[in-house]
Amino acid sequence: MILASVPDLRAAAKKRLPRFLFEYIDGGSYAEATLRRNVADLAELPLRQRVLRDVSALDLSTELFGQKSALPLALAPIGLAGLNARRGECQAVRAAEKAGVPFTLSTVGACTIGEVAAAASKPFWFQLYMIRDRAFMKDLLAKARAAGCSTLVFTVDMPVPGARYRDYHTGLAGSGGLKGAVWRAAQAAMRPGWAWDVGLNGRPHTLGNVAPVLQGKTGIEDFFAWMRHNFDPSINWRDLDFIRAEWDGPLVIKGILDPEDAKEAAELGADGLVVSNHGGRQLDGVLSSARALPPIAEAVGDRLTVLADGGIRSGLDVVRMLALGAKGVLLGRAWAWALGAAGEAGVTRMLAIIEAEMRIAMALTGCTRIADIDRSILATTPGLAAP
Amino acid sequence: MILASVPDLRAAAKKRLPRFLFEYIDGGSYAEATLRRNVADLAELPLRQRVLRDVSALDLSTELFGQKSALPLALAPIGLAGLNARRGECQAVRAAEKAGVPFTLSTVGACTIGEVAAAASKPFWFQLYMIRDRAFMKDLLAKARAAGCSTLVFTVDMPVPGARYRDYHTGLAGSGGLKGAVWRAAQAAMRPGWAWDVGLNGRPHTLGNVAPVLQGKTGIEDFFAWMRHNFDPSINWRDLDFIRAEWDGPLVIKGILDPEDAKEAAELGADGLVVSNHGGRQLDGVLSSARALPPIAEAVGDRLTVLADGGIRSGLDVVRMLALGAKGVLLGRAWAWALGAAGEAGVTRMLAIIEAEMRIAMALTGCTRIADIDRSILATTPGLAAP
Amino acid sequence: MILASVPDLRAAAKKRLPRFLFEYIDGGSYAEATLRRNVADLAELPLRQRVLRDVSALDLSTELFGQKSALPLALAPIGLAGLNARRGECQAVRAAEKAGVPFTLSTVGACTIGEVAAAASKPFWFQLYMIRDRAFMKDLLAKARAAGCSTLVFTVDMPVPGARYRDYHTGLAGSGGLKGAVWRAAQAAMRPGWAWDVGLNGRPHTLGNVAPVLQGKTGIEDFFAWMRHNFDPSINWRDLDFIRAEWDGPLVIKGILDPEDAKEAAELGADGLVVSNHGGRQLDGVLSSARALPPIAEAVGDRLTVLADGGIRSGLDVVRMLALGAKGVLLGRAWAWALGAAGEAGVTRMLAIIEAEMRIAMALTGCTRIADIDRSILATTPGLAAP
Amino acid sequence: MILASVPDLRAAAKKRLPRFLFEYIDGGSYAEATLRRNVADLAELPLRQRVLRDVSALDLSTELFGQKSALPLALAPIGLAGLNARRGECQAVRAAEKAGVPFTLSTVGACTIGEVAAAASKPFWFQLYMIRDRAFMKDLLAKARAAGCSTLVFTVDMPVPGARYRDYHTGLAGSGGLKGAVWRAAQAAMRPGWAWDVGLNGRPHTLGNVAPVLQGKTGIEDFFAWMRHNFDPSINWRDLDFIRAEWDGPLVIKGILDPEDAKEAAELGADGLVVSNHGGRQLDGVLSSARALPPIAEAVGDRLTVLADGGIRSGLDVVRMLALGAKGVLLGRAWAWALGAAGEAGVTRMLAIIEAEMRIAMALTGCTRIADIDRSILATTPGLAAP
Ligand SMILES: Cc1cc2nc3c(=O)[nH]c(=O)nc-3n(C[C@H](O)[C@H](O)[C@H](O)COP(=O)(O)O)c2cc1C
Ligand SMILES: Cc1cc2nc3c(=O)[nH]c(=O)nc-3n(C[C@H](O)[C@H](O)[C@H](O)COP(=O)(O)O)c2cc1C
Ligand SMILES: Cc1cc2nc3c(=O)[nH]c(=O)nc-3n(C[C@H](O)[C@H](O)[C@H](O)COP(=O)(O)O)c2cc1C
Ligand SMILES: Cc1cc2nc3c(=O)[nH]c(=O)nc-3n(C[C@H](O)[C@H](O)[C@H](O)COP(=O)(O)O)c2cc1C
Repeated sequence: MILASVPDLRAAAKKRLPRFLFEYIDGGSYAEATLRRNVADLAELPLRQRVLRDVSALDLSTELFGQKSALPLALAPIGLAGLNARRGECQAVRAAEKAGVPFTLSTVGACTIGEVAAAASKPFWFQLYMIRDRAFMKDLLAKARAAGCSTLVFTVDMPVPGARYRDYHTGLAGSGGLKGAVWRAAQAAMRPGWAWDVGLNGRPHTLGNVAPVLQGKTGIEDFFAWMRHNFDPSINWRDLDFIRAEWDGPLVIKGILDPEDAKEAAELGADGLVVSNHGGRQLDGVLSSARALPPIAEAVGDRLTVLADGGIRSGLDVVRMLALGAKGVLLGRAWAWALGAAGEAGVTRMLAIIEAEMRIAMALTGCTRIADIDRSILATTPGLAAP
Repeated sequence: MILASVPDLRAAAKKRLPRFLFEYIDGGSYAEATLRRNVADLAELPLRQRVLRDVSALDLSTELFGQKSALPLALAPIGLAGLNARRGECQAVRAAEKAGVPFTLSTVGACTIGEVAAAASKPFWFQLYMIRDRAFMKDLLAKARAAGCSTLVFTVDMPVPGARYRDYHTGLAGSGGLKGAVWRAAQAAMRPGWAWDVGLNGRPHTLGNVAPVLQGKTGIEDFFAWMRHNFDPSINWRDLDFIRAEWDGPLVIKGILDPEDAKEAAELGADGLVVSNHGGRQLDGVLSSARALPPIAEAVGDRLTVLADGGIRSGLDVVRMLALGAKGVLLGRAWAWALGAAGEAGVTRMLAIIEAEMRIAMALTGCTRIADIDRSILATTPGLAAP
Repeated sequence: MILASVPDLRAAAKKRLPRFLFEYIDGGSYAEATLRRNVADLAELPLRQRVLRDVSALDLSTELFGQKSALPLALAPIGLAGLNARRGECQAVRAAEKAGVPFTLSTVGACTIGEVAAAASKPFWFQLYMIRDRAFMKDLLAKARAAGCSTLVFTVDMPVPGARYRDYHTGLAGSGGLKGAVWRAAQAAMRPGWAWDVGLNGRPHTLGNVAPVLQGKTGIEDFFAWMRHNFDPSINWRDLDFIRAEWDGPLVIKGILDPEDAKEAAELGADGLVVSNHGGRQLDGVLSSARALPPIAEAVGDRLTVLADGGIRSGLDVVRMLALGAKGVLLGRAWAWALGAAGEAGVTRMLAIIEAEMRIAMALTGCTRIADIDRSILATTPGLAAP
Repeated sequence: MILASVPDLRAAAKKRLPRFLFEYIDGGSYAEATLRRNVADLAELPLRQRVLRDVSALDLSTELFGQKSALPLALAPIGLAGLNARRGECQAVRAAEKAGVPFTLSTVGACTIGEVAAAASKPFWFQLYMIRDRAFMKDLLAKARAAGCSTLVFTVDMPVPGARYRDYHTGLAGSGGLKGAVWRAAQAAMRPGWAWDVGLNGRPHTLGNVAPVLQGKTGIEDFFAWMRHNFDPSINWRDLDFIRAEWDGPLVIKGILDPEDAKEAAELGADGLVVSNHGGRQLDGVLSSARALPPIAEAVGDRLTVLADGGIRSGLDVVRMLALGAKGVLLGRAWAWALGAAGEAGVTRMLAIIEAEMRIAMALTGCTRIADIDRSILATTPGLAAP
């Protein structure tokens, strides 16, 4: 089967990954209403075709936080993504570099900042969660600076972790001890390709950056327990001062869904924000990013760089998000599936697909540059029987 | 399988209960449109995420009719619920007490008021139907008072019982005599766990409170016949005087869907009302409770305590109902499924799930107290392509 | 299986009738959009529950064209219905009489006017199509008068017959000669109950009223050919004069969907009209009757008796149609399925179900008489998040 | 099985054609949202039934670009259509002539202009793509003139070809060389009827008009490669001058979705335009043609002849498009399926079905001539509960 589209990469990942890993990536929280809305609202957004404009020369490049990017996008931070393929984040960062787009390493990635820096040849982005232990945070930031990370993505929508019930059904969560381990091993055994590539040869299976504070506990349940106990629910706007004090590069607040919160972020001097509902993995029931984005872009788009993520499954969706007011987007599951499907080559393929799809969307809406993409390329939907 | 959510508990109940009992709980009346709307309208209601507010200390407690409740909810009256597990209402009342929330015993529960009172250590609520035989009603109320019941829930939406066609398809209704009994026995035989726990060891299989007037008729068809003949269709607002005369504690009218009726209830001095369509089991086609609630809360919310039930399947749904104007909610099928799935432990688990889900919903909408929850935590849904 | 609802009767008919007959009744024309809308629009219409009104005495009777009717409904004209059970129209007319409601015999029924009159003890209604041969029409009207038919239903929405593609897929239409006959015989052979009852003992299998002009051609394809060639597409408003001249009893125009046409009918002195799209069997794509009805009732409801049909599957639906402005309804497929399921007893059962459902709907909307049912028992659906 | 409707013809084509050919015709680009909308929006458009108007004499004929046409439609240009049956375009042009409607030959048809001209006895239409090699274009236009083609359809919505992912899944696209060929051969082997008719006896399997410039490369992948490299993305409004200079007959611009573009086309003197999204095969996510049509007809309907295509699956749909403002329509997949199902006889059957369906739609909306069909035959859909 040819991997021609992002859904194809998803299907391939489903075939290659153990069930608990695939469902972990694929799922959302609670009833998954927001997850579905993210995808559906984008898919429904009508584009406006224009014809007979010379579209022989298209330029898809842009600038994000002072860095040139070949496409108006970055790879989103994905926790545990490194388990999808051998030393996964290292493979992904290489694919991103080749395509000329930024990669974001999650606080809870499988590879350490240092390991990824060694695999990379250009600055990448680093994502940070608010953790009770401020010394640990300082330490992480110091490592990011040392590794030359260019941009800090500070995620604020996880003061407490939402529950993803698929993980309970696969044994990834809620089944501590031997029982869960055996269950997951059985699932892994049904995926020999992965078991060989990652299970045997992809060690260590730790959360690189967090491993030091986990003190030797390496089970997956130790990780979830740590998250539950060490994420800081008292996080508030004043904590931004602490971050600012430790980080002098561009600072991007990730997880904004409300214009009021966006204004606050602008006030406090953030360089950017990501309109995001964490891919439908935190508060289920919130609006899709596509619906949340326009009023936020309207409110603060001139004061900081507004990015968006959630539900993007094609280059058409990237163009839609830009039309709704984003200056760029993050791709989440798209690259995690691609990595699970075919490692670095998969991510490279995914980025090529997205680019090709963007080209068609731009050519047929009559845009030759990213800056041309705005609300005017969205069609208004007149009532069916109205003139 | 881990029972991580209310739908998981439903699935477990389906596996454990004989078909006629599961469908009896699960189903609604006629085409089940209202049943579906109850669930769908809540699930669709968009929440508004807020970030970077200190949510480290959440208080979920509230006061209902002068009683402190650990959560803003009570277990709804469910007829026949006691058949879902051995002496089911006794197990449920214990789970409710442990979680610090009120339990409501139905007029047509399997256990008598006295049996439940013996199992309980705190006051519970009692639900009453309007019955032709006023002497029998007085007697029930006297028993409730004697048992120390704190609150009377007077259900007014069943002047005549609606038909639930699933019950005809399982043989619970419409198949009198031997044929129906054999049919149900066959279904029970396929559920040996239940057959042992309830069928053999859960006797007597009577409707505790009603048994005296059934005069030895214990068949399920006798019960339905009694309901058809003894529920009082002439019930009207003046009957409230009769109730008031016999009951001096808090009086809650259950089954209000219209603001006009709500005003009447307020006028006549009820202490509370439950916006309810009987879980989609009476007049099919009426609005979901979620849609009916706001105008009612608007009309009488300052004069009496407005509760609501119908379609609540998660803690997020509880928060939604509060946002729509309810001061508290009743959980119906949620506890009946939980009881069928795992007895008292199931109900305890269900309440823990609901609480955990409420915590996430409050933390991520930025509410630290129940009183903070109001319409402002609901997102408005702008048109997709509008700015 | 207990036949508890109209859908149950449909399922039973599907089991008992040969496929070509069942699909003939069940299907609609072209893509069946209107057929689906008829059912869906009614099912969606929200009712408004009221409580604590004395509903111990309900009166469901009404008057239709000077005749008392126990329920505000009549059985609709159904061509070929007589094939669903032995001498089907005779069985149906008896069930209708017992229930105290009018029966309508179709021009193209299986039994003649005379045969039905012999089975009946009270006047029934007769339905007429516009046929090229005016002498034949006069003759039919004379027979109807002679048989004491009380009301003439003149169907105007079939100037040309719409195509029902299910009939082509079952071999009922389009497969002339031996091939079609063999095909249908095979389907009949799979339904031995019907084959015995109707196939062997239900002869003659002619279209009673039309048989004379078919001149001995008794094949089903002869009938369709006759319809195609003898229905009169030149039918227009002036033809009503012809009918009026031949018929001095109440005249009801069936098949009106537009207020302009309704006004014309009123102008020309019709006594009633039926808002109908022929059960979704003529012009697919037109509005459901439920949507077409209100503006028509508004326009002419005070000048003639407005009836409606299409998509009624329960007593709740009957009440909905009345609430939308109809003075009474016709039941189409409901009785055809019932007849196919269990003959006269099936139709009796169906009418009992409809009545029981109407009682619940009236009791819980607080109506004690048919005349109480109006638009005020429909709920308005406020937006989900609006106060 | 009787082929009674267009969906029946589609089903028959699915049975007869190798999978890669069927999916090639059937599919759309990317997520196929526009493909679904084309069909759904038409199907949903409510018609307005009128009764008792004399509809015994219907005239379905019209004039398109100076030519009389028996029906207000033409067969759309379909690339590769000739592979659906032996020398497919020759069969289709004969069926079109018999029915008295124009046939359009695609630039990338299987038969050459000359071969089709030899099979035809009347002028047909020719469709042209913008190709980098202007000399080649001139040559094609010269051949079209020489063959007596009456109308030139200039397609402007393919400056770059959109991706249709079904083609990747069947091996038609993306699998170059032996692998793809073997894969397709296997699919063909499962359709012996087609393999004999077209595979063996339908040679040559070239793209007639394009073969000369493909220089002996006859593989299907050579064709797609040629399209990717030779379609001209610099195409713009000034290129119309070039076409005008080479072609003095009627010129129709195909692929307009926006009123602004339509005005430009009118300004530059086109004789007609086709509101089209290429059957949902180019920019996925654009409006359905049914929704795009009214504002375009409004804007330029008096200055040039507005046609429309996309999603038409019945004669009812043809009437709907006319009601929305089109003077005529193109049928795309309808004839390609019909050709695949039964060759010339299939196309003849399809046109007979469309005509019969148009007759019913006209008779029951009360239109006797094509010119009668306008917006007044569309029903307005009042809210369900509004008067
Ligand atoms: C498996 C998975 C893990 C994630 N882990 C993180 C994380 O560690 N930090 C973070 O800020 N966001 C995380 N996210 C959210 C993503 O950064 C991003 O917001 C989201 O995936 C975008 O939606 P999409 O997957 O529909 O593109 C994660 C998302 C997924 C699917
Ligand atoms: C199986 C079952 C039995 C019920 N029995 C009673 C009852 O005896 N008295 C009463 O007032 N309500 C009764 N109800 C209605 C519930 O109290 C409550 O209103 C409803 O279940 C809420 O909807 P939910 O199940 O979607 O939460 C019953 C509901 C169910 C599902
Ligand atoms: C199988 C069948 C045959 C019908 N034959 C006739 C007929 O002969 N004359 C007529 O006026 N209407 C006829 N109708 C239309 C019905 O009278 C009525 O308008 C329609 O069935 C109402 O819709 P419902 O079936 O959803 O109740 C027929 C309907 C069906 C389903
Ligand atoms: C298989 C296929 C091939 C097509 N090839 C061409 C083509 O070569 N040139 C062109 O202008 N349009 C082409 N089209 C678009 C059609 O001319 C027409 O616009 C479209 O099919 C109308 O939508 P419908 O198929 O839903 O009727 C093609 C469409 C299909 C389905």
